[in-house]
Amino acid sequence: MNIQRFPMNAGNKARHLLNDSLNVVSVSERIEQMNRLDVEEAARLLDSLPQQKALRVIARPELNDAADIIAALPSEHAVRLLKATAHDRVADIFQDMNERCRVAIFARLDPATAHAVEHLMAYPQRTAGSIMTTEFVSVTDNFTVGETLAHVRKVENASETVYAIYVLDQISKRLIGVVSLRRLITVPSEASILSVAQRDGVVTATGLTPQEEVARMIRRNNLLALPIVDENFMMLGIVTVDDVIDTMIADTTEDAQKFGGMEALGKPYMQISFAGMIKKRAGWLAALFLGEMLTASAMQYFEGELEKAVVLTLFIPLIMSSGGNSGSQATSLIIRALAVGELKLSDWWRVALRELPTGITLGAILGLVGFVRIAMWQHLGLYNYGDHWLLVGFTVFAALIGIVTFGSMAGSMLPFLLQRLRLDPASASAPAVATLVDVSGLVIYFTVALVILSGTLL
Amino acid sequence: MNIQRFPMNAGNKARHLLNDSLNVVSVSERIEQMNRLDVEEAARLLDSLPQQKALRVIARPELNDAADIIAALPSEHAVRLLKATAHDRVADIFQDMNERCRVAIFARLDPATAHAVEHLMAYPQRTAGSIMTTEFVSVTDNFTVGETLAHVRKVENASETVYAIYVLDQISKRLIGVVSLRRLITVPSEASILSVAQRDGVVTATGLTPQEEVARMIRRNNLLALPIVDENFMMLGIVTVDDVIDTMIADTTEDAQKFGGMEALGKPYMQISFAGMIKKRAGWLAALFLGEMLTASAMQYFEGELEKAVVLTLFIPLIMSSGGNSGSQATSLIIRALAVGELKLSDWWRVALRELPTGITLGAILGLVGFVRIAMWQHLGLYNYGDHWLLVGFTVFAALIGIVTFGSMAGSMLPFLLQRLRLDPASASAPAVATLVDVSGLVIYFTVALVILSGTLL
Repeated sequence: MNIQRFPMNAGNKARHLLNDSLNVVSVSERIEQMNRLDVEEAARLLDSLPQQKALRVIARPELNDAADIIAALPSEHAVRLLKATAHDRVADIFQDMNERCRVAIFARLDPATAHAVEHLMAYPQRTAGSIMTTEFVSVTDNFTVGETLAHVRKVENASETVYAIYVLDQISKRLIGVVSLRRLITVPSEASILSVAQRDGVVTATGLTPQEEVARMIRRNNLLALPIVDENFMMLGIVTVDDVIDTMIADTTEDAQKFGGMEALGKPYMQISFAGMIKKRAGWLAALFLGEMLTASAMQYFEGELEKAVVLTLFIPLIMSSGGNSGSQATSLIIRALAVGELKLSDWWRVALRELPTGITLGAILGLVGFVRIAMWQHLGLYNYGDHWLLVGFTVFAALIGIVTFGSMAGSMLPFLLQRLRLDPASASAPAVATLVDVSGLVIYFTVALVILSGTLL
Repeated sequence: MNIQRFPMNAGNKARHLLNDSLNVVSVSERIEQMNRLDVEEAARLLDSLPQQKALRVIARPELNDAADIIAALPSEHAVRLLKATAHDRVADIFQDMNERCRVAIFARLDPATAHAVEHLMAYPQRTAGSIMTTEFVSVTDNFTVGETLAHVRKVENASETVYAIYVLDQISKRLIGVVSLRRLITVPSEASILSVAQRDGVVTATGLTPQEEVARMIRRNNLLALPIVDENFMMLGIVTVDDVIDTMIADTTEDAQKFGGMEALGKPYMQISFAGMIKKRAGWLAALFLGEMLTASAMQYFEGELEKAVVLTLFIPLIMSSGGNSGSQATSLIIRALAVGELKLSDWWRVALRELPTGITLGAILGLVGFVRIAMWQHLGLYNYGDHWLLVGFTVFAALIGIVTFGSMAGSMLPFLLQRLRLDPASASAPAVATLVDVSGLVIYFTVALVILSGTLL
């Protein structure tokens, strides 16, 4: 496969035309450069940039440690930059800043800005309010199309994309319609803005709507931005499609790390400190270890059987891991289906009715493979499972059906249970399911063995 | 927490104003309705809609089984709808259609459309070409701003969002600049379009650029659409930010399912057939089962030791699962870091240098917990591990350090190895890592036991 970002021969000229220019470092490049520096150096670099450039750099969430970098600036410079930055970004930066710096800077902001930022910081994490942009373009319903266009032209921060223009009731200031920029240039300029706005089916969310739900609403309705309103339908801000992408990537990383059996790192892999890494991983690892200790207790309980039939111990890892693997499959399926909204909490019984026959079938397939393995090794003389090898084989077969079925059921029901308890279903990690199934798997295995081998081996 | 999509009291009126209207079913609602029907019923419903509505429904990727529904329409109706649908959407629909229907419909398309669709279908999956939209707005560089605005007004398919206007060289038709709609309305209408277009640093991709890379480029540069060009810098289409969201969600689901240890389903959980579900899950489950069979072989190899010291078997599940858990943590960290571009293939040794001390530390923590557990049980008289309980405890401690370190190293290096072999790093599933670590873990455990317990228990 020949993948190239730019054409090689004829295109080189065009590339040159498009991409080269003297001394222009793009904002993205500048951010990548700063992310490679330590905080002190990055602050010095930021300090040396012209104000307009510095503002564009700190506006972007890809800048790592933005709070620490700004805290390291001379304080009058920090205040000047934050005064000219969108309120929602200031709130994000303050969230990460140490309290002393934050209080010092806060005291020097004008009261209106300070109030707005404080209000934004009050929204809980992972809500629309915590990720919305407070800068959007709105007009009242007495505007004409021409006046609206004139307004769009003169609103500040010209670099910002205009996603849509929101129409507010002149008196109550409530949101009553939406117009796209495209529509605005297609209609006569003397028309009333209200007559060209979309007024039916305007989709909105509140500041407390969970961000996953916001992402779903944006996707379902193919929007570039979703207006966020309060209980009186007054606009608070918008969540844009780019905010949603950033959010989705962060959430996905968090979910993947949780599913891997650890706390979400919250920082890029190479940037978290050694102590931070150990802290995020040791907690869950130790918790799982304590849970898994029950396997030692279960084994101690069946010690008599183990001593009588050492042959049974040979299959313990094999059988236990199959339960864990089928559980891991079921859990990853259900967590994703819940996350993208394919399944709701109330669907749990539908899922149970699917996983039960699925688990039995998968268990029977593995059981058959296991049985054939034992029979083959016995017949080929590779290993001697004793006189009762047929019964041992049958024990493995039956135990696998039981354990894989249990694994599929437990793995699929755990995310529902967590959601029901208002916990994050993504906490149902592969290792947690495996641990749960390991302990029960041992009990199932020895119980099946007792039933089948009683009177012969046991 | 009180989350509400619409205000309850005063807002009810506004809600009424905005959302109610007689007999208007939104496209999203229509699609949800059709997704609940079977293919025959959905086709009948589609058939009964006015053409404009039907077109808007089939344009959306959220419509499930679109190919089957269209194949079930009277054929002249199917052809009429597809002729009026964007080429890239037709290509998507054809990909999923059975060959007989596709050939029949293809024969009745006009040659130009048929050619364009065929060209699009040739792009491999997960490339920019396979997800791009072929409808975009472009003008040549001799246009003025006013002429460009007039062009935007009259281009077809007025419902489509205009993401940006692309400026092409009048003679070569190469891409030489980009203008946003916002900028267009801010500048004098008699200005030349070239004078107001962004010409430096225009980011482009080719039809073969991987879609993950496209998503990254869109995010990094805060774009609403990315132009896709051929080797001569001629525009082929655009990938829009909404396409990227759909793509990212599908990829994430696929990655999560692979990490869970199965083939990606490719369909919503409740919609895949029972046989399809078994097929996607049984393959990996059986492969892992065969791999895990090596644990039985390893145990058979150490059978002599097992018979001499049954006490060692008690800790097998505990010790093995700790290796699998630490491996699962490391794998999920590295897969995500590779997916979002935080790490590159060449960073493998940096990661190895981090995972080595991390694994040793985590192993020592778990080892200490395990040792304390054995010592406590022994002293409290809960279980008697024999005269050599101290040595048994030390064996568990040392084996855990070895196994957790091995798990962290193997789990973190596997995704790199897969990427190096040009396989998908996301195939390094939690169960696969656990299986890999289980077999090696047993060998480590028994080797440590032989060293420490030789001359006493063994």
